[in-house]
Amino acid sequence: MTNLPDDPRLALMLLSSMIEPGDAELDDLLDEVDPIEVVKRLWEGDVPDRLRRITSAMVSCTHDPAARAADIASATSACGARVLMPGDPDWPDQLRDLMLVCDANEPHVRPPRCLWVRGEQDLARLCRRSVAIVGSRAATEYGQHLADDLAADLTDAGWTIVSGGAFGIDRAAHLGALARGGSTVSVLACGVELPYPKGNHSMFNLIAEKGLIISEWPPGTTVMKHRFLTRNRVIAALTAGTVVIEAAHRSGARNTGRYAAELGRVLMFTPGPVTSSMSVGVHQLAREPWEARLVTRAEEVIEDLTGIGGPLAAPPPPQRRPFDRLTEIEARLVESLPRGYVVETTRLAAAAGVPTEIAAETLDRLLRTGWVDRIDNRWRLSRGDHS
Amino acid sequence: MTNLPDDPRLALMLLSSMIEPGDAELDDLLDEVDPIEVVKRLWEGDVPDRLRRITSAMVSCTHDPAARAADIASATSACGARVLMPGDPDWPDQLRDLMLVCDANEPHVRPPRCLWVRGEQDLARLCRRSVAIVGSRAATEYGQHLADDLAADLTDAGWTIVSGGAFGIDRAAHLGALARGGSTVSVLACGVELPYPKGNHSMFNLIAEKGLIISEWPPGTTVMKHRFLTRNRVIAALTAGTVVIEAAHRSGARNTGRYAAELGRVLMFTPGPVTSSMSVGVHQLAREPWEARLVTRAEEVIEDLTGIGGPLAAPPPPQRRPFDRLTEIEARLVESLPRGYVVETTRLAAAAGVPTEIAAETLDRLLRTGWVDRIDNRWRLSRGDHS
Repeated sequence: MTNLPDDPRLALMLLSSMIEPGDAELDDLLDEVDPIEVVKRLWEGDVPDRLRRITSAMVSCTHDPAARAADIASATSACGARVLMPGDPDWPDQLRDLMLVCDANEPHVRPPRCLWVRGEQDLARLCRRSVAIVGSRAATEYGQHLADDLAADLTDAGWTIVSGGAFGIDRAAHLGALARGGSTVSVLACGVELPYPKGNHSMFNLIAEKGLIISEWPPGTTVMKHRFLTRNRVIAALTAGTVVIEAAHRSGARNTGRYAAELGRVLMFTPGPVTSSMSVGVHQLAREPWEARLVTRAEEVIEDLTGIGGPLAAPPPPQRRPFDRLTEIEARLVESLPRGYVVETTRLAAAAGVPTEIAAETLDRLLRTGWVDRIDNRWRLSRGDHS
Repeated sequence: MTNLPDDPRLALMLLSSMIEPGDAELDDLLDEVDPIEVVKRLWEGDVPDRLRRITSAMVSCTHDPAARAADIASATSACGARVLMPGDPDWPDQLRDLMLVCDANEPHVRPPRCLWVRGEQDLARLCRRSVAIVGSRAATEYGQHLADDLAADLTDAGWTIVSGGAFGIDRAAHLGALARGGSTVSVLACGVELPYPKGNHSMFNLIAEKGLIISEWPPGTTVMKHRFLTRNRVIAALTAGTVVIEAAHRSGARNTGRYAAELGRVLMFTPGPVTSSMSVGVHQLAREPWEARLVTRAEEVIEDLTGIGGPLAAPPPPQRRPFDRLTEIEARLVESLPRGYVVETTRLAAAAGVPTEIAAETLDRLLRTGWVDRIDNRWRLSRGDHS
């Protein structure tokens, strides 16, 4: 007789340690029966063949599932984490949208059933007005500068930054937001007790203090390549939109971007030099059929996130030069005056294609504003710098 | 009795020297009556009020219109140029599309009636498969490098480059194409005999020799700011598409781009660092409702120009690393093996979430390809660099 966990939450935590998150077959099973019953069936081998094969090794070396679930719960509280499940008050309901994603190449796209969370904040509240900033680990200084700036300005505008925990863009985004007093959310592909990579240790401590570190995997889980792809769907689904800042040709950030587009979130990217290998991936986003939006400033991100009715980005500050302030007729007259020559009003009017009377009036005005000099009733370009 | 030109071509050349090209009122008039009759009416003051005012100064100081037209014809042949008009065999008929453009802010958008041409080539033939490359005069090294590269590669692919004659992007595009033996078309906003700016003198000589220098203005016409805007519509209309490479916030290149979009031509831009003021204008193009396409390489330009049925740009060369060549199951097993540890097959299968039998088979394969070592029937990550 197998010793089963007596609490559905414990059973779900155990299942999260055995089957990768987002598994469609497990998800379907959990729609039918209680998590405890699923654990029972796994240990009895009474599940679809694929689930049985995936879990067989774990089942064969785990003789007491209840004890193992209890161990996971202890490890959870030992690192100061808690577990959230759908229906909990601070569960972010927008994760349900992942039901919309159908990806034959990636079987782990169903919504999370279980999230480990470190930090005091309310996840649902934090993510209500949130935007993901993702990009390459091997980011350039340019990309990190952009990520830091965008995150800081979006934080100032009341948006929560959601990202992974990697070096490069993820790190720059978190630090940019934290520097402005923001609460960021770091979504990991490993256990929340030992965030990867270790080099971001002090950043993770800061995030746990001010914001939240979350994961679908129980404590003790190490990173694996495929887990980052599974994790990316959560970043995309939690937020109103994703900004991809720097991505190489084959990049996880593009994968997050694709999820965002499929989920009907706003997919944005910042451009870079076409000569930079770190911008190849973002520029590809722009040419794919996902309607990725080019953004250069936080105001443009907010414009795109809020859509119709939201604030429009102010145009960039104009750089008007003195010549640009002239009317078209003034400009024609000034340009028709060859530098160094002295010209009669009628000739000048003819050259400029302006009626003589209007030319005369306009030249008087240009005289007053210092553009031309009058010499014996003829006109000369004055010597100031008009360029 | 006024001495009128006796040839409609001479009359049109004269009209081109009096009224800025693209003038809607003159265009309507020329649809009704012969150019000689238009000249007659101008000298009699028998034209709409606006046309009369624009031309009054010129009329009052030109007592012999026929002589003035003959002077223009002499100046034309003196610089080795010729004049093309609609109906001539090498007239580019696509210029008629400018009838589609309605711009209340810019009255000079009608199709050209007259083009001065320097060079031996056939304008219609050259432009049949042509693309405009335009951008800032104050371009960065980055922008010039891009323009040069794109122009060279498009030339190799059999496309004619059309541009202005300015420093910066225009110059780099011409030189890139000429270096590959291409025939480029330079569209000027002044007379073809004295192309502006003078600093591009030797480039203009090369273009006149290998390609064409064209203008709507007769010899002797100097550049004026508004003429560049009028000229831009010709660059857009001649070509199948326009690539804008670097443009500041207020830029003529964006004006050309807008014409391209309104004419149903393909509007493209190359991105740059968002921190570069020379890329502000191109990034704005991407956020305006003109469906500007982001391009980074000649292949992408050709893909966009040729549309459905044309060649697709090859994906950028992949940078596959050894790890990327592993199957998902192989990758999971490799990643589940902690570096330096020796692990049993069953434990490793459990950690990787892979059935034991499949893990065993896969590990044998990984042993043969040098990823793992077998020690007493247990597995260890081999020491090679697998990153």
